[in-house]
Amino acid sequence: MAELLKGKPVADSLDEVTLKRADALKEKGITPTLAILRVGERQDDLSYERGATKRCEKDGVAVVNKVLPEDCSQEDLMAAIKELNEDDNVHGILMFRPLPKTLDEKAACNAILPSKDVDGITPGSMAYIYSGLGEGFAPCTSQAVMEILKYYEIDPKGKKATVVGRSLVIGKPVSMLLMNANATVTICHSRTENMAKVTKNADIVIAALGKAEMLNAEYFENGQTVIDVGINYSEEKQKLVGDVKSDEVESVVEKLTPVPGGVGSVTTAVLVSHVVEAAERLLK
Amino acid sequence: MAELLKGKPVADSLDEVTLKRADALKEKGITPTLAILRVGERQDDLSYERGATKRCEKDGVAVVNKVLPEDCSQEDLMAAIKELNEDDNVHGILMFRPLPKTLDEKAACNAILPSKDVDGITPGSMAYIYSGLGEGFAPCTSQAVMEILKYYEIDPKGKKATVVGRSLVIGKPVSMLLMNANATVTICHSRTENMAKVTKNADIVIAALGKAEMLNAEYFENGQTVIDVGINYSEEKQKLVGDVKSDEVESVVEKLTPVPGGVGSVTTAVLVSHVVEAAERLLK
Repeated sequence: MAELLKGKPVADSLDEVTLKRADALKEKGITPTLAILRVGERQDDLSYERGATKRCEKDGVAVVNKVLPEDCSQEDLMAAIKELNEDDNVHGILMFRPLPKTLDEKAACNAILPSKDVDGITPGSMAYIYSGLGEGFAPCTSQAVMEILKYYEIDPKGKKATVVGRSLVIGKPVSMLLMNANATVTICHSRTENMAKVTKNADIVIAALGKAEMLNAEYFENGQTVIDVGINYSEEKQKLVGDVKSDEVESVVEKLTPVPGGVGSVTTAVLVSHVVEAAERLLK
Repeated sequence: MAELLKGKPVADSLDEVTLKRADALKEKGITPTLAILRVGERQDDLSYERGATKRCEKDGVAVVNKVLPEDCSQEDLMAAIKELNEDDNVHGILMFRPLPKTLDEKAACNAILPSKDVDGITPGSMAYIYSGLGEGFAPCTSQAVMEILKYYEIDPKGKKATVVGRSLVIGKPVSMLLMNANATVTICHSRTENMAKVTKNADIVIAALGKAEMLNAEYFENGQTVIDVGINYSEEKQKLVGDVKSDEVESVVEKLTPVPGGVGSVTTAVLVSHVVEAAERLLK
């Protein structure tokens, strides 16, 4: 049976480091601060907001809440972003998406300063992830994958890593991060032929398609590490499942992240560490 | 023996299309115009400038030359960029690099408007190549690879493509372009273990390491298409050679671009097509 790479100890370990870094900043008179910008009252957003706020408290990071009504104008939204950009006491900005359809989400993303873009949604962050130039941050989920590998001492250097999925939220950025860590990266997607052959050929597989349990045992081999980024609700099983069919796959591979309790549990810990990093970068 | 995928017919075919598009713009009162910004009198730059100017003439694209002395100040350079950015009659800007060491090249690249960045050197262009969002252009050499594949009717869709090299000038952008064209892309680099196995596993190999004739016959298999992006001067042979040891490899693979006369011959044709595209985008 595969070793389960649980997220909680990774997040705990990150929290510990983040708290120390936050304390060091406070000694210099800086309180690392995350601004959470929310439009409307979506249940998803409120739930994530509670989790992020709790994590910030734990890690010694302050939270500023900026809430706009669902029917706010684009001008209101842009003014709120401008205010947070210009506020020297705010180091990171988390803007919940999707925004209501009445708003121009792209313009809003573009307006956030890359240096405060702790969730990696701006063009500046994308250029940064791709090129290593400029300012910005990787999307938290993609960084969470790297933190899991690091915590469990799985060094991507010289390894073959296959990423299944090419989205901007996870597939592309995690490919770049793995390449930066000196893995030989292959990116699969819906047009990939004979995908099972490609996934079987890897030492590390990152599953990020967003399709419930699509990758069954046929896609894997002995000795592999599998990071399952998918979080899907299975009507059939009435519970959350990953992109990997874990019932089958856990008897094949060497290491596997569970869903829930894997990558998803590390994401907010990464977010808060990014806020502290944004504050630290200002001192450099 | 491999079919040689020569660059000239690809460039000629591109020129034909670019000329028609330039003529269509002129009928609307717009003369597509490339500004060439050169600092100093480097032989490389002068030579490329002559080639680009000739190609522009052939394709119905006007050229504006902006030349600064080698000892110009950063302020002079930034002022020149600002002037070209603001000039509505200039659609594309080509700035020669490397700049003299006294100048801040990064700041200069950052200052060029992505919408005029026809050689894909700005952060905006990088975000565009990576994400498909925003404005900008792929670096000409990476686009030249795609034009060669297109001209010789080698559709990357569903194919396995291995890119050797992860530079910002060619490895990374060509990986993105191949992925956009629905290839399953693997990116190799200096830390890749058993690279020959990875290159042999591909239908299409892009050689972009910048090491003279490093990829010998051991890296290839029957039936492969090999695009050699390398342009290196061999002291031993007293001539230009690619990254592929063509003497050996041409008897192994199915299709191969020559060096010289391959990718390099397509680059300026792509540059000029980008200028026309920049002008066309303004009409949309």
